[in-house]
This record gives sequence, C-alpha cells and structure tokens, in this order.
Amino acid sequence: MVMNELRKDYILDRWVVIASQRRRRPSDYIVEGIRYERGGGLCPFCPGNEHSTPPATLLYVIEDGVLKKARDEDGDRRRDWIVRCIPNLYPAFTPPNPEQARPPWSESQHVSMGALGHHEVLIESPDHNEHPGSARISQLVHVINALRDRFSYFMGKNYVKYVSIFRNHGASAGASLSHAHSQIIATPIIPKTVGEEIASSRRYYERKGRCVFCDIIDVETRSERFIWENGGFVVFAPWAPANPFEFWIFPKSHQPSILELAEDEIRCLAEALRVSLGGLRSLLNDPPYNLGFHMIPKEHYHWHIEVYPKLAVWAGFEKSTGIYINTMPPEESAKDLREAFKKEESLVQA
Amino acid sequence: MVMNELRKDYILDRWVVIASQRRRRPSDYIVEGIRYERGGGLCPFCPGNEHSTPPATLLYVIEDGVLKKARDEDGDRRRDWIVRCIPNLYPAFTPPNPEQARPPWSESQHVSMGALGHHEVLIESPDHNEHPGSARISQLVHVINALRDRFSYFMGKNYVKYVSIFRNHGASAGASLSHAHSQIIATPIIPKTVGEEIASSRRYYERKGRCVFCDIIDVETRSERFIWENGGFVVFAPWAPANPFEFWIFPKSHQPSILELAEDEIRCLAEALRVSLGGLRSLLNDPPYNLGFHMIPKEHYHWHIEVYPKLAVWAGFEKSTGIYINTMPPEESAKDLREAFKKEESLVQA
Repeated sequence: MVMNELRKDYILDRWVVIASQRRRRPSDYIVEGIRYERGGGLCPFCPGNEHSTPPATLLYVIEDGVLKKARDEDGDRRRDWIVRCIPNLYPAFTPPNPEQARPPWSESQHVSMGALGHHEVLIESPDHNEHPGSARISQLVHVINALRDRFSYFMGKNYVKYVSIFRNHGASAGASLSHAHSQIIATPIIPKTVGEEIASSRRYYERKGRCVFCDIIDVETRSERFIWENGGFVVFAPWAPANPFEFWIFPKSHQPSILELAEDEIRCLAEALRVSLGGLRSLLNDPPYNLGFHMIPKEHYHWHIEVYPKLAVWAGFEKSTGIYINTMPPEESAKDLREAFKKEESLVQA
Repeated sequence: MVMNELRKDYILDRWVVIASQRRRRPSDYIVEGIRYERGGGLCPFCPGNEHSTPPATLLYVIEDGVLKKARDEDGDRRRDWIVRCIPNLYPAFTPPNPEQARPPWSESQHVSMGALGHHEVLIESPDHNEHPGSARISQLVHVINALRDRFSYFMGKNYVKYVSIFRNHGASAGASLSHAHSQIIATPIIPKTVGEEIASSRRYYERKGRCVFCDIIDVETRSERFIWENGGFVVFAPWAPANPFEFWIFPKSHQPSILELAEDEIRCLAEALRVSLGGLRSLLNDPPYNLGFHMIPKEHYHWHIEVYPKLAVWAGFEKSTGIYINTMPPEESAKDLREAFKKEESLVQA
C-alpha cells in the first residue's frame, strides 16, 4: 500500500493529505446537476421584480449609448440596469446606527462586538439564466467594474477593516437563488485566514525583499500544476489544495487589490473568469462551487481568486483538526482542467 | 434593524456572527431524515461479514462471562465481538513501511512529508441499528474503553504527534456507512486547530496559574448556555459556536485526555453521550452531525468533546475568511437542548 502525502500550504500552517489511494476519475466526482432550494416562483433578481428587493446602491445603466452609474432613490426602482447592487435582505453585517451603537466589550471569557459593516448582493446580469462560465466578456467587465466600485466605497469607511467578495454556485454550496450573483461583505475585523496570509506574506517580503506570491506564480507557471494563462492572468492548481479540482487565479503583475487593475487587465480577468468557470462547468457537469477574492491593500500582498469546487464533504476530522483530506492530486486535476480550459477558449464571445 | 453580534471564541482567534435576524424555530432546522450513500446490500460492519474488512486490531469479546480483549489473526476473523476495531480500508494515514520510507522534504515553495500514522474504524456495536443516542450505558462503556485502548496504543508510537477521535453521523456529514462507528486517526503532526488551542491554553495557564477550560466550565455552568450535567460531566453551548445547536461535553475534573478517566467517570461519560446524542436526535429528527474529541497529554490542557450538528452550509464567505455566520444564538439553542436532554434522561438504560 503506497503511503499518502501530507502537503503544507505555501504560506499558511495548513496541511492537506493528498490521498491518491482513493483517487478516482473526473467523472466519479460529478454530482447531480446543481439544485436550488427555492424552485419556481418569482425571482427577485429578475428585471421587473426590483420592488421585492431593497433600493439599489449601485446600478450600471446605458443611457443614449453611454454607460452610466446610478442608484435607486428610496421608493423608486429602475428597471433598465445591466448590473445591480443591493443590500442583502438578511444582512450578516449592517452599517452603523447611532441609536444602537455599542462599543466592543469583553467580560471574563466572553468577547463581543457589533457586526458593523455591510452585506450586499451584486446581480451580475438581467438575464436569469446567465452563467459566468458562458457570459460575454463585455458583461463580465461590467461585473468586475461594479465590484471595484463597491470595494473602493467600502474600504473608504473608517469602521471597515476588510472587504470579502465571494460567489456561491449551487444550493449545496450555499446559494439560495440561481440568478447569477456575487456577494460583498465588509467586516470590522481582519478575518483570521486573511490575517494569517498577511502576516506570513509580510515575513517573506521582509526576509527576501520579494512578494511570496510572485515567487509562487513563477514556480507554478512552469510546474505540472499550471492550467491556463493569458496576457494578464495565470491559473494553476495549488500545491496543497483542500478541495478536489481547486484552482487559483492570479494577476501576473504584482498588485494588492482589484483597484490597481489596468483597463486591459480587466478584460484579461473577465476572460480568465469566463474560461475558468466555463471549463469547470464543462469538465464536471456544472458542479457547485465557492469562489473567494483574497485582497488587502498592503504593498507586500498580491490579490487573487480561489475557486473551491464542492465535490467532497468536510467531516469530523477536518472540522476538529484543520487538516484536510483530498482524494485528487492537483497535478492530475490540473491536467484535466488544462484540457477543458483549452476547449473553452474557442467559445469565448466578446 | 437590530445589529447582529460578532463573538470571539474563548481561546481561538475565531469569530462568529450570531445572526439572530435570521433566527428560526428549532423545527425550521430539521432536515430530511439522514441518508446514507450506500443503500441496501451487505453491511461490512455487521457480524458475519467480517471477511469483507481487514483483520481486527482490537476486539472486545465475552468469554465465560468475562470481558476479554483479543485481535484477529491474519486470515481469521472472530464473529463473537461486542466492539471491533479495524484498519480503515481507504486509510488517509498509514504506518511506516521501510520500503517506502521517505524523509520530509521541502523545495522552494513546496513542503511535503509522508502521511505516516494510522487510520482505524471502531465498530460500536454488533447491532446494525444501534445509535449512541439510544444505546445501553454498558455498551457505551465498552466503546469508551476501546477508544482509550487505541488512543493509548497510538500515542505510544514515536512517529505519532496527535490522535484524533471523531464520529460522522449521516451521509451529508460525511458518513458512508450507517452502522454505528467512530474513527481514529493518528497523525505525524500537531494539527493547526489543536496547536492553536494548546498555545492559547498554555499562555493562560502561565499567566493565571489556572486551566482556561476550568474557568470556562465554571462560568458556563452558571450561564444561560448551560444544558446538562451529571456527577462527572457538564454539557453547554459555547459562547461563539460556528454551528447551530453546537454543544460541548467537558469532564468536570481537570484532565488532559480520556486516559485519566476514573471508572465512575467512564460511566458518567457514557451517560453524557447517551443523553446528549439522544436529546439531539429527538429535538431535531436525528440530524447529521460531526463529533470530535479534543485532547492532548499536556498538563494545562482539559480534554473535551465538541458536537457540530450539520444544519447549515459553509459557503464562500466562511471558506475565504474563517468567519462563521450562525443563525441560532447559543442561549436559545441551549434552552431547547436543555428541555430535550431532560426528557431523554428518563429513557436511559443501564
């Protein structure tokens, strides 16, 4: 019996067992077509149903052939949007309200503070059946620009320490509505995982004078884990993935956040998302997944996107120890994803 | 709109949003009856089917009315067991094999070592339909003693740094077989979560001269989060639970691991498991859950069991940040669990 391999993440103290004894073919990972909890009925994200959501905090609209930014006035809802940002109806974090302001407190074993911040939804298209894996590049450029707008706005708040942008696809990955959308959460603390990434990448920067992620990109672009690249972005399977078929999307140029993206890089990112999520969909029959942006406006940090297909269950061992068991070696998933992304490239529409 | 509360774990840098705006009644958390992937067919854990598993590393058998320990000789399988420990057929960790010994290595960004260790399954009863929430106390005492035996055996290996004991209940919590069983994994590293617990509890011990968990037990036994106690154990909902209806089971006396349990404490633990898991089952229609032992043989550590009902999905936000959103305040889940455990007590059979 061949011994499995324990691998450590590039910078986090996170270990993964690559359990290749349990290795299976890609088709064995295919789960049933994704499902959503709320079947049928009215989709609150579709044009015409705007009144079942809060007023938009940001709209992109086309007026006289020109792209403009707008927002809903209270009581009113515009219907002519191409992307639409709204407060989450059930926000985890909410903006300050003078009447209920309460300072952080702690008492013996108990530390608490208000969940101050923001929680928004970005509706990525008026088309109910849009999928970022088949969308036009021009539409994805709008999505990226809207994310940049909201990221910049939230980072400007003095009570906001971090802004998390993420996407849940499929009910088993936590999405309750199927209409394409991302979420943005602004928090009053630096989250644990992010804090560990910052500390570790800073230590590397101070020791070597280089960005750790730039060095990782350099190594992985030439490794078996390389998947795809264009002029501005590179996609690879990480050395120690916690999830089967996990992949990461990095800008080639060193930049802390999406605010530093040049215009041609925005198009490159749109293409990277289109090809990646389309390739993932075609390879594994539209699997559920979670996608998260990692970015922090610090000189030594290098923003990127991590995509976690949800094809396995984290159970008692993972939850109690923080060690993950992954039955798919990244060198093999990269091979399959590489082929799928290559085929996908030819389907991209401007 | 009332602002949610952000709470920090007692000792870990782990934050949870208690999102009581999304609060629901216990019945709203009830998921479909638990299901298992492998329906029908032969159960490899049932008596008579021992040959479809590896030879047992530990058996408890009754001979002439006396409890004895035994093990299967190669090729042979005993059928008269009351608990049975076997190597996992698809082990994540495997014992040393001189032919494939490879030392840890690291190269630029890549750190790797062999997944050296053990991975066993403890079959908790010959009865296919046994459930620790309805088992006899005498049977659970056997289970606890067998776990002690294997824990002690693995901790004695010089390549083992940690032993994780856990239990997955229901397919959506990662259990592929329904026949009652626990798993034991011995690892060559201290897992991240455990390492953080050790470091933090050691700092507290050095600063205050007391065990942090003893102080937590003292506070929570008198708080609204208290659920249940007997002579040796106390159960409470933690201050900052990542999961709805999460609860923790602690021995009242300060002890680093289950090896220090006195005989009457073993019975108390069996009763605590019986009442807790039975109460959880009756309150939420036998929900899927993961259960993990936390223990490390260090003077300042206080072993305990954490039970995580699986009633919510961790999505992009949780996975990218390490912040958890929980819609059930522990003060409310404790109230419901307290009532359910109380009813359950009367059903306990010796």
